[in-house]
Formats: sequence, C-alpha cells, structure tokens
Amino acid sequence: MIKNTKVNAAILIIGNEILSGRTKDTNTSTIALWLNSIGVKVAEVRVIPDIEKIIIDTVNELRKNNDYVFTTGGIGPTHDDITAESISKAFGLNYQIHKEGFKILESYYKHGEFNEGRQKMIWMPKDAKLILNPTSGAPGFYVENVFCLPGVPSILKAMLGGLKNIIVGGKPILSHTINLRTVESEIAKSLTAVQNKNKDIEIGSYPFFQSGKLGVSIVIRSEDQLKIDSCSTQILDFVNQKKILIVDKK
Amino acid sequence: MIKNTKVNAAILIIGNEILSGRTKDTNTSTIALWLNSIGVKVAEVRVIPDIEKIIIDTVNELRKNNDYVFTTGGIGPTHDDITAESISKAFGLNYQIHKEGFKILESYYKHGEFNEGRQKMIWMPKDAKLILNPTSGAPGFYVENVFCLPGVPSILKAMLGGLKNIIVGGKPILSHTINLRTVESEIAKSLTAVQNKNKDIEIGSYPFFQSGKLGVSIVIRSEDQLKIDSCSTQILDFVNQKKILIVDKK
Repeated sequence: MIKNTKVNAAILIIGNEILSGRTKDTNTSTIALWLNSIGVKVAEVRVIPDIEKIIIDTVNELRKNNDYVFTTGGIGPTHDDITAESISKAFGLNYQIHKEGFKILESYYKHGEFNEGRQKMIWMPKDAKLILNPTSGAPGFYVENVFCLPGVPSILKAMLGGLKNIIVGGKPILSHTINLRTVESEIAKSLTAVQNKNKDIEIGSYPFFQSGKLGVSIVIRSEDQLKIDSCSTQILDFVNQKKILIVDKK
Repeated sequence: MIKNTKVNAAILIIGNEILSGRTKDTNTSTIALWLNSIGVKVAEVRVIPDIEKIIIDTVNELRKNNDYVFTTGGIGPTHDDITAESISKAFGLNYQIHKEGFKILESYYKHGEFNEGRQKMIWMPKDAKLILNPTSGAPGFYVENVFCLPGVPSILKAMLGGLKNIIVGGKPILSHTINLRTVESEIAKSLTAVQNKNKDIEIGSYPFFQSGKLGVSIVIRSEDQLKIDSCSTQILDFVNQKKILIVDKK
C-alpha cells in the first residue's frame, strides 16, 4: 500500500469512441508520463460518454478531490464536442466567445476560412485561460485546476509543453525497471519480503512475453533515488541467489 | 444526448502501471468491442491504483450502478495482486482457497511446480464462480455481477469467449463508419442538423490524419440497422451536395 505523493491529478477522457472500443486511449499514458516527470502522480482515470450531465458531475467530483484535472476530447467544432459548454456549467460560468482565442484563430486561418464551425472552438467558459496549440491553431483552456485538452494525441502532446510553468508538482517520480527471465510465481515470496521491508516504495511486478519467451518486469517507483537503489540491490540479491537471468535494467 | 441502452457495463482497470503511463491500456477496447457485439454498452471506465480501500469502494459503487462490472488486473501471484482479496471484502465474503480452482491448477502444473506463489492465484471470494482460462491455467472468477479478469491482454481476450452464455445483453450495438476527405468545420453545421433530426442515434465525428492527409470519420451507432441506414443516407446527401470525397464506408 503506497502513500500518495503530495500532488495528485485525475485524467478525464471524454468520448464515446473510447467507450465503444473503436479507439484505444493513448492520451492517458502521454499525460501520466509527462506529469510524473514534473512530480505529479495520476491518482485515477475515468472515461465517460459525451453526455453533459455526466461531464458536469464528474468534473465537479474530480476537481474537489485532486490538485489537477486534465480532460481530453470534445473541444472540436462538431455537435458531439460539448466539453467547453459542460465545463462552463460545472463552474457556473457563462459560455461565450473568448476574445484572445478569437484573435488567434482569426489570424491563423486564411481570410474567409474562419467559419461558424471553427468559431465554435473558441466558445469557452468566461475568463478561461488559454492553452496554446503550436500545431493546429485552436487552443485548449483551463479554469482553476481543470485543464481541457483535445483528444487528438499528436496535438495534445504538442500542447503539454506549454503547461510546464503552470502545473506545480512535487519531486519528480523516478522509476527503475529490472527485466528478468522468470515467471512471477518463482519470485513472488522474495519480492513480497522486499516490499514489506520498503513500505514507502511502490514495487510492481508485470509478466511479459517477448520474442517467444516469458519474463517479468519489476518496476520500482519513488521520488527518492537512494531508496530505489537500495530496493534494487535487495531485489538483485535474491535474483542472483536464485540464479535468475537478468535480461536488462533501465 | 443519447439514451443508454438497457444493458450497461463498467470496466475497472486495476493497476499502477496504467496510472504511471508505463503501460497503455488495450483491454478496454477488447472488452468494449466484445460487449457491444452481445448488446452490452460500456457506460464508464475507471483506472485505479493497487490500493485495497480504493478497489473496495469503487467496486461497490460501480456494481450498484451497472448491470455488469469487469475488472482487469491484480489476480496474479505477486504482492501487488490484491484484486481477489479486495473483491472478497467488497462483498463481505471470506477470502479462501477455491476447491475447483485448486484442482484445475494442480493438474495444470507438473508435479512439484504448484508452489505457494501459484496457489495464491486460487485464493478467491467464497463460492466465487470460475472464469476458465484456456491459455495459461489460472482462472478468473465472478461474484454476482462483478467479473474479474487478468491484466495480460492476450489471456484476457482468450477468457472472454467463456462468458458468452453468462452475460445477458440486449440487441447488439451496430455501427457504420463514413470516412471523408474533409475537415470537421466544413461539415459541423450539416452534421448537427442530421443529429437533431435523429436524436436517438449516436453520431460521432472524429478527425484523422492518414498518409499525410486530413480526414473525418463519421461513426453512426444504434441497435437499429434501419435507423443507421436512414441516417447514413441523410449524411451522404449533404456530403454529395458539398462535393466532399468519400474515402470509404464500412
């Protein structure tokens, strides 16, 4: 049982296409890896449909219980893009044209191309702050601790960099992975003993199957490199004793 | 706004490796596509850490609000596999050796190989029913409407088939996709009009980028093929009028 770090985030994936199975979500991994690097731990992820009441209720629950909330999806120009309007309602703010956002898109598009559909993308909660979009113009936005990003993975990735000085994390979360040629049941008892001796370290064990061979990845996570090193040494002790092949460490 | 179909499910992904971003979840898509084919709609997905209290609370919330709950992960032999014990506590059932499961693994492993680590995999809630595992021996289990599956995608996939006669769905959820060479803002207004005329049909619009070209997938979902066909005709009407290239339909 691992105590959470001080700074927590929730990720809220908004989109029927994930719930239907049509699209596999990769944004969680992108956001989580980036957050870990700046000392924010993802405490939970939810995937919900494009239904206003559900978005409002979920955002209001998550923003109370987490330092940060990141939403993905639903900020495009079509009828199923209802995130901005739902967030407005969640905060009790007017849903209106964002002046700065309007100027950005007005100069981004050629004359005559900034049509009604595209204008929908700068309807936002009143006084929302923009998250600039270096690849395709239309910005995301944030209100208090809720950050709204697009669903398209490449655009989302490009926008995260702009948040670096806005999100305030704790110590970066470090990890060390030891890949072994073994099966989990062979190391379960010894690994439990190491976990029990290092209760504030997160030790995960994950079977893998690669190039026709079974293996186990042991992942050690902490904010403290010295603790990771000590834990790693204890694991390698029993690994060597059991004569288990170490595939690699990273 | 789409009315949910009669039979709903929630998916609960249990695992720090998803929250850390190390592993991308693909099980949601596998389970959702399979459930859709037997008439069950996924209403929500949650990803939570390997923490007992959070597992218990989340399972108890989800099983009340959904016809079915599918958990993935945490049923292996190591210390971080705490799903079975947590589910036992969620239902107030003893956590104990499952006799039938014990027999299965006893005959699955060679003499002497059914060690303590492997025996942990058949500790389950009292009177749990087994979900047979055609690929690697260790079964999943279910209690009432909560189905516990492993996290390894290939094993999970192989186990779903065994649930076909246990999960009772409604009408299969059908879908039709029209891929267009356009951008969302060009079709947003017309698509909104079609959605407004077909309020009980789910119409999604998803930008894509393929072979260097932008496009939009329009996905129509319903249990009623006739309604999908009618909706598709209405969409193709404006597509042809606007002289938009149809990449494909499927």
